[in-house]
Amino acid sequence: MTKLKNDTCLRALLRQPTEYTPVWVMRQAGRYLPEYNQTRERAGDFMSLCKNPDLATEVTLQPLARFPLDAAILFSDILTIPDAMGMGLYFSAGEGPKFERPLHNEWEIRDLIVPDPNVHLRYVMDAVSQIRKALNNEVPLIGFAGSPFTLACYMVEGGSSQDFAKIKTMLYQRPELLHHILDVNARAVTAYLNAQIEAGAQIVMIYDSWGGALSHAAYHEFSLPYMEQIVSGLIRERDGATIPSIVFTKGGGLWLESIAAIGCDSIGLDWTIDIGQARARVGDKVSLQGNLDPAVLFSNPEVVRAEVGKVLASYGKGSGHVFNLGHGISQFTPPDNAAAMVAAVHELSKPYHS
Amino acid sequence: MTKLKNDTCLRALLRQPTEYTPVWVMRQAGRYLPEYNQTRERAGDFMSLCKNPDLATEVTLQPLARFPLDAAILFSDILTIPDAMGMGLYFSAGEGPKFERPLHNEWEIRDLIVPDPNVHLRYVMDAVSQIRKALNNEVPLIGFAGSPFTLACYMVEGGSSQDFAKIKTMLYQRPELLHHILDVNARAVTAYLNAQIEAGAQIVMIYDSWGGALSHAAYHEFSLPYMEQIVSGLIRERDGATIPSIVFTKGGGLWLESIAAIGCDSIGLDWTIDIGQARARVGDKVSLQGNLDPAVLFSNPEVVRAEVGKVLASYGKGSGHVFNLGHGISQFTPPDNAAAMVAAVHELSKPYHS
Repeated sequence: MTKLKNDTCLRALLRQPTEYTPVWVMRQAGRYLPEYNQTRERAGDFMSLCKNPDLATEVTLQPLARFPLDAAILFSDILTIPDAMGMGLYFSAGEGPKFERPLHNEWEIRDLIVPDPNVHLRYVMDAVSQIRKALNNEVPLIGFAGSPFTLACYMVEGGSSQDFAKIKTMLYQRPELLHHILDVNARAVTAYLNAQIEAGAQIVMIYDSWGGALSHAAYHEFSLPYMEQIVSGLIRERDGATIPSIVFTKGGGLWLESIAAIGCDSIGLDWTIDIGQARARVGDKVSLQGNLDPAVLFSNPEVVRAEVGKVLASYGKGSGHVFNLGHGISQFTPPDNAAAMVAAVHELSKPYHS
Repeated sequence: MTKLKNDTCLRALLRQPTEYTPVWVMRQAGRYLPEYNQTRERAGDFMSLCKNPDLATEVTLQPLARFPLDAAILFSDILTIPDAMGMGLYFSAGEGPKFERPLHNEWEIRDLIVPDPNVHLRYVMDAVSQIRKALNNEVPLIGFAGSPFTLACYMVEGGSSQDFAKIKTMLYQRPELLHHILDVNARAVTAYLNAQIEAGAQIVMIYDSWGGALSHAAYHEFSLPYMEQIVSGLIRERDGATIPSIVFTKGGGLWLESIAAIGCDSIGLDWTIDIGQARARVGDKVSLQGNLDPAVLFSNPEVVRAEVGKVLASYGKGSGHVFNLGHGISQFTPPDNAAAMVAAVHELSKPYHS
């Protein structure tokens, strides 16, 4: 394999020196880009776009053509795994993802099987290889999956939820059932991420979108240990390069010390925590990714630049910071503000790395 | 004024010794109680219930007739203030609160006035006096208001919001406009809470439901200082008794040290933080209120008892803890589980106070 032309993101994730702070954007291939909406229209719906490797490659590359981003991220969805388990994922307009066959009873839970990623999720692996090829070693490719708990939320609730009443009832009343789902999910995610690595992913990220809805004790029993199980089962090196792992629990700012201890290389931060304080708490155990409030991108380029400067200043001197938003970019973001953010990160971060 | 027969909650809020840990429940008069639903049906809709002091008194007392709670809380809504400002509050089924005339432009913002609570919110003061009389000094009455930032969210967004796009755009692009709204709100809330105290409220609580949606820096600029302004303007003593103040920022677990420094007597905790760790962080500056996951009440009395025991054990020995849920009780809660929680708090907490 040829060497990466820009490996700044890889180095920052591993806390190695860089010349500037690298930047990518969660959901960087998305609805705020007119070219994305055009491709999606051609695809028909969201899942058809995910399942078509040509089109998934096309949209993955779109933000890189616009902005000098330091990484690409696979265009896909966290719910591909439960879909491959046979649960029937679909998207209903305005209501987000739903499952035709959510987990209703005990035998459905006992019957859950770990899908073979190279069979049941072949379309994802094809997309990964094709994107990797198309990237031509310009920047690294990030693969990803949902956390076991986050996947379980959708599998049990049947879709998005405000109060997580069903899964939390199970958690408190039938914890052993939930542990069974989580163990299956953890094995499924491990196999899935490793298949993505084999197919060409150079960084992997676990999205724990709903772990932050748990109590302190429940997070440490039902979300974090399963992410630890995944991290410890990941392929560590491929073609001579280390594959860094990033764990992102939205709303997990209180638990950074515990997250830093599971063996991941980097922690994704949402925008509610001061990144300098986060750095002081995790020390040199992990790198940090984040954490501009996505709403800053509703303002204007001058404000964006100033707010980027504040995040960089709070992190301070030295490596170990990958700039990102604290959550996915909103569909209502003017692309010019995203451009201003990327430019500001590259320009304003240099003094912190001299 | 006669002395309170049960002043355990008052003493705990002020970190004075008590014989057991007092307990009340956020939204304790609510839809999980069949008798509440009957009264509400008679009233017509939610705001008619709030605006009728007889009926507001009736529902305020209902949970106390069922459970040996250590405090009553005024039945009302945080949005009475913007309603009194002329914004036209209404509730549309399934969509939560909305305003007929949200703040659209600069002159509407500049024209905002502080409503006179004894005129424009007379119905609230009437309810407070009437409830206080009906309580017959059994337990203290809690008055409350929304935080200036939380009120501003509804006033600018026009209703509930997922991403707070409008108010955050204002925050980043026109911060001085938002500061103006917040200053008006802070003055309105101060006058409102003081009028509640004059009418008979013995404890006051500020609900900062959406402060947790802000970045660390924005919280410290746009939410916390305005709660500090309120707290420092509150009547401190009435009829020889201190009026304790409670500040509750949902999702504010990262900011406890700053909240403890604004002069409030107590901090409300949501369920995501371990209350023992919270106590270690705030020391003897404030008491703590919380913080059982409301979803625990979806389980059964045995589990409820065990989970109550864990919260009490985490807080540990000594006073300064008022037991509560970490958020409002869900409408889907079986009342028997609420009863089990109250009983468990009273019974299991005694050893921690010996």
